[in-house]
Amino acid sequence: MISARPLRHIIIDTDPGQDDAMAILLALASPEEIEILGITAVAGNVPLALTQVNARKVCELAGKPDVKVYAGCDRPLDRTLVTAEHVHGKSGLDGPDLPDPVMPLQEAHAVDFIIDTLRAANSGTVTLCALGPLTNLALAFRKAPDIIPRVQEIVIMGGAYFEVGNVTPTAEFNIYVDPHAADIVFKSGIPLVVMPLDVTHKALVTAARNDAFRALGNPVGVAAAQMTDFFERYDREKYGSSGAPLHDPCVTAYLIAPELFTGRHINVEIETMSELTLGMTVADWWGVTGRAPNALFMGDLDADGFFALLTDRLARL
Amino acid sequence: MISARPLRHIIIDTDPGQDDAMAILLALASPEEIEILGITAVAGNVPLALTQVNARKVCELAGKPDVKVYAGCDRPLDRTLVTAEHVHGKSGLDGPDLPDPVMPLQEAHAVDFIIDTLRAANSGTVTLCALGPLTNLALAFRKAPDIIPRVQEIVIMGGAYFEVGNVTPTAEFNIYVDPHAADIVFKSGIPLVVMPLDVTHKALVTAARNDAFRALGNPVGVAAAQMTDFFERYDREKYGSSGAPLHDPCVTAYLIAPELFTGRHINVEIETMSELTLGMTVADWWGVTGRAPNALFMGDLDADGFFALLTDRLARL
Amino acid sequence: MISARPLRHIIIDTDPGQDDAMAILLALASPEEIEILGITAVAGNVPLALTQVNARKVCELAGKPDVKVYAGCDRPLDRTLVTAEHVHGKSGLDGPDLPDPVMPLQEAHAVDFIIDTLRAANSGTVTLCALGPLTNLALAFRKAPDIIPRVQEIVIMGGAYFEVGNVTPTAEFNIYVDPHAADIVFKSGIPLVVMPLDVTHKALVTAARNDAFRALGNPVGVAAAQMTDFFERYDREKYGSSGAPLHDPCVTAYLIAPELFTGRHINVEIETMSELTLGMTVADWWGVTGRAPNALFMGDLDADGFFALLTDRLARL
Amino acid sequence: MISARPLRHIIIDTDPGQDDAMAILLALASPEEIEILGITAVAGNVPLALTQVNARKVCELAGKPDVKVYAGCDRPLDRTLVTAEHVHGKSGLDGPDLPDPVMPLQEAHAVDFIIDTLRAANSGTVTLCALGPLTNLALAFRKAPDIIPRVQEIVIMGGAYFEVGNVTPTAEFNIYVDPHAADIVFKSGIPLVVMPLDVTHKALVTAARNDAFRALGNPVGVAAAQMTDFFERYDREKYGSSGAPLHDPCVTAYLIAPELFTGRHINVEIETMSELTLGMTVADWWGVTGRAPNALFMGDLDADGFFALLTDRLARL
Repeated sequence: MISARPLRHIIIDTDPGQDDAMAILLALASPEEIEILGITAVAGNVPLALTQVNARKVCELAGKPDVKVYAGCDRPLDRTLVTAEHVHGKSGLDGPDLPDPVMPLQEAHAVDFIIDTLRAANSGTVTLCALGPLTNLALAFRKAPDIIPRVQEIVIMGGAYFEVGNVTPTAEFNIYVDPHAADIVFKSGIPLVVMPLDVTHKALVTAARNDAFRALGNPVGVAAAQMTDFFERYDREKYGSSGAPLHDPCVTAYLIAPELFTGRHINVEIETMSELTLGMTVADWWGVTGRAPNALFMGDLDADGFFALLTDRLARL
Repeated sequence: MISARPLRHIIIDTDPGQDDAMAILLALASPEEIEILGITAVAGNVPLALTQVNARKVCELAGKPDVKVYAGCDRPLDRTLVTAEHVHGKSGLDGPDLPDPVMPLQEAHAVDFIIDTLRAANSGTVTLCALGPLTNLALAFRKAPDIIPRVQEIVIMGGAYFEVGNVTPTAEFNIYVDPHAADIVFKSGIPLVVMPLDVTHKALVTAARNDAFRALGNPVGVAAAQMTDFFERYDREKYGSSGAPLHDPCVTAYLIAPELFTGRHINVEIETMSELTLGMTVADWWGVTGRAPNALFMGDLDADGFFALLTDRLARL
Repeated sequence: MISARPLRHIIIDTDPGQDDAMAILLALASPEEIEILGITAVAGNVPLALTQVNARKVCELAGKPDVKVYAGCDRPLDRTLVTAEHVHGKSGLDGPDLPDPVMPLQEAHAVDFIIDTLRAANSGTVTLCALGPLTNLALAFRKAPDIIPRVQEIVIMGGAYFEVGNVTPTAEFNIYVDPHAADIVFKSGIPLVVMPLDVTHKALVTAARNDAFRALGNPVGVAAAQMTDFFERYDREKYGSSGAPLHDPCVTAYLIAPELFTGRHINVEIETMSELTLGMTVADWWGVTGRAPNALFMGDLDADGFFALLTDRLARL
Repeated sequence: MISARPLRHIIIDTDPGQDDAMAILLALASPEEIEILGITAVAGNVPLALTQVNARKVCELAGKPDVKVYAGCDRPLDRTLVTAEHVHGKSGLDGPDLPDPVMPLQEAHAVDFIIDTLRAANSGTVTLCALGPLTNLALAFRKAPDIIPRVQEIVIMGGAYFEVGNVTPTAEFNIYVDPHAADIVFKSGIPLVVMPLDVTHKALVTAARNDAFRALGNPVGVAAAQMTDFFERYDREKYGSSGAPLHDPCVTAYLIAPELFTGRHINVEIETMSELTLGMTVADWWGVTGRAPNALFMGDLDADGFFALLTDRLARL
């Protein structure tokens, strides 16, 4: 049972990615809880030229061609871009066969859209949902630091503590790709909610959950099933797990049903000074450092509740 | 059921510590599987002046005053010594009231004892059991590199991967205290078996297991119960766990019953280049780096079998 | 004897600073060689709120109120801002008593002005003159990477090799303040000309050179003398040198008379991974690394020729 | 004019190397000022198997076969050994054709000789002269920390500030080869005198100075001329300098005639945390850090006086 909540006005910053797509679909399917002010694309899972297209494909799949999609940064601040076609396929959205989008890409730069939106809105009313490397957000905060105190909250898929890492032994992909951007965001003073691998590796699409998507019967359900079919191959081989982890939808689910998640309000710092552990989210889960808390770092979720929510909402599209 | 194994000739390098004491007692109680060539003390849990005394106290508690105990390094290679009196108490062995030892401290330096022993024995017949910071071992390998290929195996309590860290968010105490020594050992090419927190945090002294020690009725059993009573206070407060983790006895238990432990033969590197993550054991558990394996890094143990072995053996002293 | 050269179209990125002011005055006094497309202010010697005002004061002092001045970033990418009021005075331009500027600050952000200018001009016709931390340039290159191949050259005051450092034992101020921005610029592939302390510490305003400024009789000459009077106090105390080093005018002098400077085309990398040496420009002056050259790193100048040029040009304002 | 001084009792730790040889010869030729307690060899310019032989060759060349020579560490603490055959030739002592030594290598390990000597002598009466990587000294200090307060002084050839580096753009060879050992020594609290490249690059063997060696007529003079002939080829090609820098003899010359050298008592730290600048001696020459002085870091020498001393003393052998 999910209670009524105040409407959240959000910008989704994303590098679709099948799980990004699911996160966007969940948001688009939930207009009572979430108003999407715009979607900003960033390089990450695949290059920017693909992520901005994929973001529009997803909006059209959901029958929402009026959503504004903006392109942002095509590379990290101070690192060479690393991508993850071995996970997401060449297009970044392999699995379903989605048509090229007809809806336009907005002309403004994603960074300017973020800045302008935060300046135009009442302070404290806009939430940033970060599903990829944090380059766009970091650039916006450095170009226009006046927006920093205006952000209501940033909900981030990124990092890991007990799950440690996926792209390297100690780093999760989104943070690893642009550790300096992550460092800027984690030190910004903005309220942060973090969905690390600790949570998202528990949001596994089992065969039954995949069947539930497919059984919805609508195009979104079928595409969701096809995307998670494709997406799980990587994790099944690597981890021997029983299904694809739905990383990014944890972010948008949190806006609808935060009670699904539990975590700790702790200090989290980003490793930027060592090649060996670059991009690690050093989370003071046990409170041993004395450093001030800066993030609500999640550790667990109600997976059944999460998939019930997701399936229920996708049915509405 | 534990099968007959070839006798292992070992040097125990240690910084007692209650759990070090338990590891030593287990070895002393198992003459059919383990011959202790000597015990070398190092600074770690408490300063060297205490650890060499504690090592002798433990031998006398076990009724083995003929064991040779040597003092080694009183500080790490290139870091200031950090100790852990908040865990182990001021003496390092708080809990039981053990008398000052009568047996002598050997005159030779621990480093020279290690070197001389390895040179005197047939190559490949001496195992090093490392229960503390790896300073003594690293110094021996640098003073006498000819001994490196003569070591049969090093079995180390140290590091962490999914358990990440205890003294900092990313480092386990033994490795953190002397990360450069650990780096030397992990790059030595010697076969390594590592017992990280991932294993040792599963070797918990529950109330029932503590009762079993006490019920042995011999002085060793009572002291073991008193030590784990004291030792568990720290972890209970910090982790909310149900008992003290018996880190170091995993090392000596492995020599007797390796089948109690499971792990992976993987690459493990030591972080020495960043203050934030200093001393982390970067374990390539998922095989994502392509770096050559250098350690059998354990991940799980049969806790009931472990405590059955430990209790059974302590009864013999 | 200075030969005729093609007109250079430049953007001056700056954090005035008395020596920045002298560099700007030299450019404003040299319309036959230099066309200033705009001046962009950045935080550095003093905060942005002062540097953008100071840039306008200098233009008005030169009788050039039509120059476009833009404000840029108020802090470095991934470090806390460090300023240098102990060198430049509280205003950043202590020495002369210059009136508050009447000319307006442009509305556009410095980063967007840089991007728009480079996109509007023919490729390879705009030179960037960097007199402060490289934050604005780095942000422009990341927001709009398409401009990178359009830049003709970047002439930078920053870094040091044999002079090693001023703000720390190993870092020059401009690079130290934003080492990540410097790293982005030095890895951009754009042709770079670097004026390190090796050069600028040879451009000393002796008493005779200061007198020559004052003897010009025009307001600019008097202000130049007053600024260098103030500015030299710091270096005289620290280095026991005989006058203020005119760092930044080396950049604009190079555009007019490159034959005044000699250097080597070598590899230069920026230290970003160690607190101890952060912001060092690691210049491979002796060619020992095999790394590809990326900068013309200057090592010497004709100081008399430099001051003759400077004095001659200031007389024209 | 060189005044009478108290006799210095020294251990020479060395990796000969032609300039090491000259330093040893100078000491052997100066029994009124210097008593050599022993020579300890370390890996550096060439592997240990050669440096210990070369040390004995030099003693025999000087007609001093009774000097005790000990072999020490064959590799750095926590780095792979780097050698410099491209500077010193395959043997480390290319140039003269010296016979294989007849005098024996001592059986004791260099580290133990250092420890035993310092313990046996009155505290504060033994000076360590370090001409190579600092591995032996660091190991001795860690094995036997009780000797640290007993050392009178360590005079080190190593590091660089304004000369920055030779083996990399920022590191001098001796420190680069074992930066962790250097860090241990520089943080030991022992009085340090450092002869960096800033000094030694001014001790150039010009043709006239080489002729003066040769003109001595004795075998030592001829060998000295041949060694510096060979040795200078590297620096002449690289730096275009007019002769070989006699790095190591600065150390032993300092014991005889400290007035030849001028420097500053400042803080010097060793870079161990970054690959890019590894082994740099970060010298706070300008006093900008507030860190406590730990070394007399030399900056200049009286080159004519130095060569007059050297030539005069070599004549005595």
